[in-house]
Amino acid sequence: MAHRYAIIVAGGRGLRMGADLPKQFLPLRGEPVLMHTLRQFAPEVEELILVLPAEQQDLWQELCAEHHFTLPHRITTGGATRFDSVRLGLSKLPAEGLVAVHDGVRPLVSRTLIRRTFEVAEETGAALPACPVTDSLRFLGEDDTNEAVDRAHYRAVQTPQTFDLERLHRAYEQPFSPQFTDDASVYEAAGLGAITLVEGEETNIKLTTPRDLLLADLLLD
Amino acid sequence: MAHRYAIIVAGGRGLRMGADLPKQFLPLRGEPVLMHTLRQFAPEVEELILVLPAEQQDLWQELCAEHHFTLPHRITTGGATRFDSVRLGLSKLPAEGLVAVHDGVRPLVSRTLIRRTFEVAEETGAALPACPVTDSLRFLGEDDTNEAVDRAHYRAVQTPQTFDLERLHRAYEQPFSPQFTDDASVYEAAGLGAITLVEGEETNIKLTTPRDLLLADLLLD
Repeated sequence: MAHRYAIIVAGGRGLRMGADLPKQFLPLRGEPVLMHTLRQFAPEVEELILVLPAEQQDLWQELCAEHHFTLPHRITTGGATRFDSVRLGLSKLPAEGLVAVHDGVRPLVSRTLIRRTFEVAEETGAALPACPVTDSLRFLGEDDTNEAVDRAHYRAVQTPQTFDLERLHRAYEQPFSPQFTDDASVYEAAGLGAITLVEGEETNIKLTTPRDLLLADLLLD
Repeated sequence: MAHRYAIIVAGGRGLRMGADLPKQFLPLRGEPVLMHTLRQFAPEVEELILVLPAEQQDLWQELCAEHHFTLPHRITTGGATRFDSVRLGLSKLPAEGLVAVHDGVRPLVSRTLIRRTFEVAEETGAALPACPVTDSLRFLGEDDTNEAVDRAHYRAVQTPQTFDLERLHRAYEQPFSPQFTDDASVYEAAGLGAITLVEGEETNIKLTTPRDLLLADLLLD
């Protein structure tokens, strides 16, 4: 079995200087979101890389001490964009193996889904969890036009996005493009082969508003 | 000002015979979801049409009595598909005016949004609330391929979808097509003109799972 690694990207900077904590540090069942996320990955990988903005690292260390959080993980300083942050995380990993890249603010991911993306990535090179789109979708054309598209032809993408490490290193040698909204789009732009979709989890939500945190609390039941 | 009407479509049949209540009847703050929905529309329209499956109408009347729900509304029997149900609701309305078609299971819609869609539909013929897509999207091609698309080019559609009544009557004269996932797609297929998007509301969620009901309860705060 190939060596397995995870990069947890936690780039959120909160809403305003001096205002709220960044989302990844907000408490879920009394513990920062990020600790839940790391704990889901820990048993599945040999090394956990946590990418954090430089100015949040002291706070994170304080939170770890306060919560007696001793799970081994390696902290790396993030960049200005998610692309830069993943690239910097990748630079700490060996040339070969498998790597799962995951949003720090998706603490409810199941270990089953993590394992499934590793298994599929080992077989095909790239695995991406995706769910059916529940809302009707419209496409915005030029000149302010818009038209219905068939949502059955679309999937909403989650993380962990899991890849053959050697290929993902190559993908991240590309210069940044605004089209790079996730790791799969970076991989794809490098022409490294097809991406295999695996079934995502409805509960694997990304915490983007305070309300999502309340929902996450409900989902933990 | 044109006469304003609303059609509330409540076609859900619950999960299983004898099992759960249909979602539109589940309690939210102690009162069936559908009562919340009707109450949002009542001050904005001259007539409220509620489209319900025939076999749910007795239960609805019982619930209205039990909850002392006396808001005037007209009940119409729905059809096998949402398309049929809206068509049957439309058949109870006059030839001219404006009509908002709304999902019975979106009880959190604001009156501001309802009014906004009426105002825009009066001006342009068709108004559709839509929100940015928050997840990365992939398009499923032939032969099991899939590729990233730019989510900035898409919008997730909500209700109320509000139209010039004369034009929506004409649109619903078309035979059913599987592409008709909402009223806007029916209007569009009839070649009746462009649809104007208005900004939707993040809180205007569609209740599709028991969990959504818990979330709706949180959102009412």
